[in-house]
Amino acid sequence: MANADKSSGALYLDDLRIGQRFRSGTHTVDEAQIKAFAAQFDPQPFHLDDATARDTLFAGLAASGWHTAAITMRLLVDGGAPLAGGIVGAGGEINWPKPTRPGDVLRVESEVIEVTPSRSRPDRGMVTVRSETLNQRGETVQVLTAKLVVPRHP
Amino acid sequence: MANADKSSGALYLDDLRIGQRFRSGTHTVDEAQIKAFAAQFDPQPFHLDDATARDTLFAGLAASGWHTAAITMRLLVDGGAPLAGGIVGAGGEINWPKPTRPGDVLRVESEVIEVTPSRSRPDRGMVTVRSETLNQRGETVQVLTAKLVVPRHP
Repeated sequence: MANADKSSGALYLDDLRIGQRFRSGTHTVDEAQIKAFAAQFDPQPFHLDDATARDTLFAGLAASGWHTAAITMRLLVDGGAPLAGGIVGAGGEINWPKPTRPGDVLRVESEVIEVTPSRSRPDRGMVTVRSETLNQRGETVQVLTAKLVVPRHP
Repeated sequence: MANADKSSGALYLDDLRIGQRFRSGTHTVDEAQIKAFAAQFDPQPFHLDDATARDTLFAGLAASGWHTAAITMRLLVDGGAPLAGGIVGAGGEINWPKPTRPGDVLRVESEVIEVTPSRSRPDRGMVTVRSETLNQRGETVQVLTAKLVVPRHP
């Protein structure tokens, strides 16, 4: 776990290198969390009710992909990507190869894949970070390749 | 508003054509919603506290991009994309050109940009839908190009 001390250990654009890796802590997902998120943001049967979910593509209760994304963000913010100025995403690509299930213990492994200083703004740059969200069996439930705005050393 | 009656008006793969468009209802975002989502999933100063947020890149309180994504999903599920079998995403590309602010009234405009029957699974196919999330001033706060699994007519 690379729990960042934002006051001292946070990384600026100048500190980042292609291939640099970060690991988050873990978060355990339960049925109540899955249903609560779904009730608010993605009220579809396969995210709300296990019995109904069995007859769907998901073959059982599954978290909304956006719930997996939100949990991933929390794990990154809590120290999975210790960036100066916080984690500010402009966008990215997201894929959910497998669903998140009740009882899953999620963690995030991230890797810097591109570092681009801004031409127009000398105080910042863009970093592309590929974050894999894995469950307790090492299966990938989400791949997020995000473009993040990162400040340069003051 | 194309609020879908899932029992009768839902669209199968065979009903979808490139260029087909859908409109969602609206959702009004307030400060309490922004802070509640952030506290749970994205606890960074610019999503939690207006005064602190003023000195950041966001220049004021802004919703987490994942909150905008989650609200967009709710608007789609509530009738913004009346697909048979629900809205099941395999992944996609997401961008946040502008932040969502307290008081914003969001709506989603979607367009079918690709329809691909599955070669291996004759009962389904993949549809690419581009969904723009707009605020009350017509500014785009999110663009999501998602690959969705859609069943064929039984």
